[in-house]
Amino acid sequence: MDNAFDTIATAAPFDTAKLDRLMDEAGLDVLIVTSRHNVQYLLGGYRFFFFDVMEAIGTGRYLPVFVYQKGHLENSAYIGNRMEKFEHALGRIWTPVVKAEAWGTIDAIGLAIDHARKLAGSTKRIGIEAAFLPADARDHLRTGLGDVEFREAHFTLERLRAVKSPAELDLIREASERVVDAMMATFKGCAPGMTKSDVVARLRREEQERDLVFEYCLIAAGKSHNRAPSSQRLEQGDVISIDSGGNYRGYIGDLSRMGILGEPDSELRELLQQVEDIQQVARRAIRPGAMGGDIIAAGEAAVKASPHRAVLDFTAHGIGLVSHEAPRLTATGPVPYSPYDADRPLEHGMVISIETALLHPTRGYIKLEDTLIVSESGWEAPGDHGREWNSSRLMA
Amino acid sequence: MDNAFDTIATAAPFDTAKLDRLMDEAGLDVLIVTSRHNVQYLLGGYRFFFFDVMEAIGTGRYLPVFVYQKGHLENSAYIGNRMEKFEHALGRIWTPVVKAEAWGTIDAIGLAIDHARKLAGSTKRIGIEAAFLPADARDHLRTGLGDVEFREAHFTLERLRAVKSPAELDLIREASERVVDAMMATFKGCAPGMTKSDVVARLRREEQERDLVFEYCLIAAGKSHNRAPSSQRLEQGDVISIDSGGNYRGYIGDLSRMGILGEPDSELRELLQQVEDIQQVARRAIRPGAMGGDIIAAGEAAVKASPHRAVLDFTAHGIGLVSHEAPRLTATGPVPYSPYDADRPLEHGMVISIETALLHPTRGYIKLEDTLIVSESGWEAPGDHGREWNSSRLMA
Repeated sequence: MDNAFDTIATAAPFDTAKLDRLMDEAGLDVLIVTSRHNVQYLLGGYRFFFFDVMEAIGTGRYLPVFVYQKGHLENSAYIGNRMEKFEHALGRIWTPVVKAEAWGTIDAIGLAIDHARKLAGSTKRIGIEAAFLPADARDHLRTGLGDVEFREAHFTLERLRAVKSPAELDLIREASERVVDAMMATFKGCAPGMTKSDVVARLRREEQERDLVFEYCLIAAGKSHNRAPSSQRLEQGDVISIDSGGNYRGYIGDLSRMGILGEPDSELRELLQQVEDIQQVARRAIRPGAMGGDIIAAGEAAVKASPHRAVLDFTAHGIGLVSHEAPRLTATGPVPYSPYDADRPLEHGMVISIETALLHPTRGYIKLEDTLIVSESGWEAPGDHGREWNSSRLMA
Repeated sequence: MDNAFDTIATAAPFDTAKLDRLMDEAGLDVLIVTSRHNVQYLLGGYRFFFFDVMEAIGTGRYLPVFVYQKGHLENSAYIGNRMEKFEHALGRIWTPVVKAEAWGTIDAIGLAIDHARKLAGSTKRIGIEAAFLPADARDHLRTGLGDVEFREAHFTLERLRAVKSPAELDLIREASERVVDAMMATFKGCAPGMTKSDVVARLRREEQERDLVFEYCLIAAGKSHNRAPSSQRLEQGDVISIDSGGNYRGYIGDLSRMGILGEPDSELRELLQQVEDIQQVARRAIRPGAMGGDIIAAGEAAVKASPHRAVLDFTAHGIGLVSHEAPRLTATGPVPYSPYDADRPLEHGMVISIETALLHPTRGYIKLEDTLIVSESGWEAPGDHGREWNSSRLMA
């Protein structure tokens, strides 16, 4: 193991210097990471296929654990399920220590405790993800490690992921393009008499055929603002809002496009144009060095100037392995946001989702959502097609 | 709300008398349920589509919560994400109280605390699922409810689910039949030069086309016992073991079948027959009133009598919404099992998975896994086809 550090340092799939600096800022000596997205990130994309969809097994659940000691990449350990020995044998797990021996929460965290105890130097503060660490595992961790302070590591890890690598950006581009392609194919197949659930089933298939993992589809049709798939039948003239997330190797494409069963009249054209104008104003605020809050300010100003301001919803958020993540652009919004990036500069490689919805009382739910990559000098918009009204055929 | 009890009692999607009895045995006054499978069960199959695949969002994660007070079905509450108001508006959530107002773990559990505080009568002991309750939510629960004892509710809830309803059995039949149909179609398409990952991609598609949610596929080929999908290429003469789980509306079909690129020779026929014999001996032990341990004893005796006993793995376990659940037939095995059902009678409506693998040192990994429903007088085996060698074409 003497030379392990050099070998591994080259191979590490993340920016270790950045992580060490972030841990310094947070006062953390060791990280015990248990969320799927952060474990996947630290493992360079690896995720055990068996528990991709389910988590419960036996009397407990799958709990992958990554242990990282600040400044000591060579001490990184991964604890996985016993069946992950198959993956390890294929060389898919880079950490110097791999323990593919667990089934549930307690035995997994027990192996993490064993490893943490062996780390040289004094461990005073351990970063955990309290929302992604089961209560029984945390109790076991406290008992097992005794006189240690546990701190939340969410923002440390999120920060590490905030600027995407070129390889990550490629995955986000693919995810975004494919989601919109799937939507275009789905709109083409829409016809009166189909239910909203039928449309979602079609979209699911279109995404899966493009090697995406279908995550969800919010769908509104006609005058309704209800966005759950249901037995509501499409009728001639209906507007259709599709907002779907599909992931490509873990990275989420999350965009919204509009369809219509027929041709839009001038009012509908004007309404979508209003949404489009706000989307364009907001994206023009994006460039390295601009403040995160500039995007929000630009979008909100455009909303305020719109005659439809009372029924407009505008927001923007980071996106990547998690559908709402850093950069965090606003201090308000549905999720308890941290205003972390509102007055911090955007960086090349950050990814931002911008969304504007117009909840019209008589014409329906009209929305666009776009993905923007902060480029060297401005922005890039993967999946930026199909942003007009997409007309479907009228007969099945 | 005066008459809510009568209305709801009829509509309750689970056996409330059984749950009350199980809670009495465990000394529980209230349940705060947070695992997806148990929440789905108590909600009669409802599961919010948006978080079917992902769980992380914003700075936390989705946490659905079901609150049940013993003997007071009318006080049942469901706490969901804000977007679940769409589902609630469609009448999909049966509980008298629905709070579709949360985004993360803390606000969700906060709403559960509010509800629990309003329950009349003294609440002394609350059942939780510690492996499915995030540490931050459990801390908040403790602070919020003060002088209450928290106990593990895993076995109470698992017991409630152990005997399946006719509607559940229909879903399990569908899941099992469709998984095996998908395997048969996949074997037909296998050819030399394909990788194991190609085969899994094909199986995934075949399952999805049959409206299953593909969960995983363990696959071994040739002489290897490595069961991870990989770039290993199929060669003429290879044996192929496919062990896949796919769920139909949450219920898992989990079966294993064997393929071969060519025709099996007499040794391979004999090896699969050995596996088959053990499978048949074990299933013949199944009938209402037989002890759960009888299945294990029968299978283990058959293993012991086999010339291949040194390389045979036999096990059996309950299956349903979770891939290993009650009835728990053995005190040993990969998951920390409870021997709960080893000396308790099997009941009509229980569902059991039986699996036998032969890890042959030179001929490969040979396995059958079957699903057995405990019927009125014996057993029923959905998806019981394709249990011989399935020969694939030799040319692509």
